[in-house]
Parts: sequence; C-alpha cells; structure tokens
Amino acid sequence: MLKRDYRGQNCSIARALELVGERWTLLIVRDAFLGLRRFDQFQDSLGIASNVLASRLDRLVEAGIFERVRYQQRPDRYEYTLSERGRALRTPLLALMQWGDGISGKPPRLARRKSDGAPVVAALIGPDGKQVDPGEIEIVPGREGTKRGGRRVAAVR
Amino acid sequence: MLKRDYRGQNCSIARALELVGERWTLLIVRDAFLGLRRFDQFQDSLGIASNVLASRLDRLVEAGIFERVRYQQRPDRYEYTLSERGRALRTPLLALMQWGDGISGKPPRLARRKSDGAPVVAALIGPDGKQVDPGEIEIVPGREGTKRGGRRVAAVR
Repeated sequence: MLKRDYRGQNCSIARALELVGERWTLLIVRDAFLGLRRFDQFQDSLGIASNVLASRLDRLVEAGIFERVRYQQRPDRYEYTLSERGRALRTPLLALMQWGDGISGKPPRLARRKSDGAPVVAALIGPDGKQVDPGEIEIVPGREGTKRGGRRVAAVR
Repeated sequence: MLKRDYRGQNCSIARALELVGERWTLLIVRDAFLGLRRFDQFQDSLGIASNVLASRLDRLVEAGIFERVRYQQRPDRYEYTLSERGRALRTPLLALMQWGDGISGKPPRLARRKSDGAPVVAALIGPDGKQVDPGEIEIVPGREGTKRGGRRVAAVR
C-alpha cells in the first residue's frame, strides 16, 4: 500500500499528486473525459483488477473529483461523472498527454477545436492571453499576496 | 515494486506516466526546476530514503529527462540537470500545481512573468494563441494525419 501523503511538502504539486498520483488514477480520469461512466466500462478500458479499480474510484469520489450517481434501483447501480474539480484536470491531463506525444512521436489522440479542427495545445500564458516564454517565468512564494512583493525563488528554465 | 508500463494503453498520458508517474518522481523534477542539482539537495528537500532517490534519478536519466553531469573528479561527483525533454515538463507541472492550488486555496508558490510580475497560468489555446473553451475541445484519434479527417472520439467536457 502506497502512502498517500508527501510529508513536509508544502506544495500544490505534492497536494495534487496525493489525490491523483496513484497508479491508474489519471487514466481513470482520462477515460471519464472520453465519455466512460460505469465500472464495467472503466474495467474494459483499463484491464485492471476490480478491487484496484473500486479503490481508485472510491478515492476519487472521496477527493471530490468524481461524483457517484445512482442510475438504477433494485439492484442499485451507480455511475461516475467528473465534478467541476475533476473537469479542471483537463489542462494538466492534456499537458501531460502532449508531453507524452513528444516522446512517442506519433500522437494516438489529438485535441482540437470543434469549430475548425485547429489543434489545441496546453501552454503558459499571461493575463493578456499571450504565451510566456520559458525564460520569462519565475516561481515565487505565494504568501505575500501582492504581485510584486514575492522574494524570487527560482527561474523556471 | 510497481510495474512501470500500462499494458494495452496506446495513450500518451499512459506513456508519460510510465516515465514520471512513480511516487516522488515529479517532485524531483519540480526541485530541478527550482534550481536543485545535487543528490544531497534533493534528499534534503524531499526527505526520502537515498535508495529511493537514487533509483528515481537513475530512471529519470535513463528516460532522458535528466542529464547526469560530472562536476568533480577523485572522487567523482555528479549533478543532475534537466534535459530539453525534462524542461518540457514545465507546462504539465505548472498545470498540476495550479490544479492543486484550487484545492488548498492558498498557493504556496506562484508562477509569474519576470518583466512585470503578471501571473502565468497553464491554459488550452489554439494556433491563433486564443484560449479555447472547454466545451469547444474534442479529442480525436491521431492516426489519420489530417486536421479534419479524424473520427470524433469524445468531447472533453
């Protein structure tokens, strides 16, 4: 059994990984984005043991990423849909997918804009909507609350 | 020992997670973005066992995400720097961080543009640089190679 917490890490990446960093978890979320909702569908797609899938789904519900919705009574049957918090994983997931594309070279799936089929990519942008160059990004502590007040921690190279 | 591969998953998210999905791995990459380079620095930051850290670093070098550079001879000492592939994890990492911020509410770190301190966010954009609405994104198979030719798999809701 993996520990779920990253002790001593005051970090939103660690926090995120505590919720979605376990094996298979992000692939379940991916499948939900692709339209799957039921236990059997996830199992068919992933080919994992049902106890593992059940534990991951419970955890995702507990973390407020999935909502468990009853769609049938006697016997009760449930399906799993992404909450708002879950749908907010769209950007990290597509960013990770596109990074993975860069390794395999041949993207199995493409994200595109419905209206014109144009490719959609994850990018880092400023409040003016313009892409920000990697060399132009810095990471500062978040405590101060002001835009300019933070001590510089590091440039993201 | 975790299996590293996700069998039967022809998916760049699965591919990415095979390389960076193991526990602690993305936090090591985060630390490298924050300027750490040496084994002891990573260990101080993460507080993990040295055999775990050593195995993760080996794996990251093997995956072409880190480069192992000798900075001292007799005894030989090495430091770890992000390769181009590693630096390309900037967008997924910041996307994940900002998703985690949404949960804890109080961001421990902020990404901003050096020139004016403006916040930098991960977003989904089209080739015109404009943000694309979640409802306007669809995921299609990547095989066909043409922009419009793909069978629609799913809308990303």
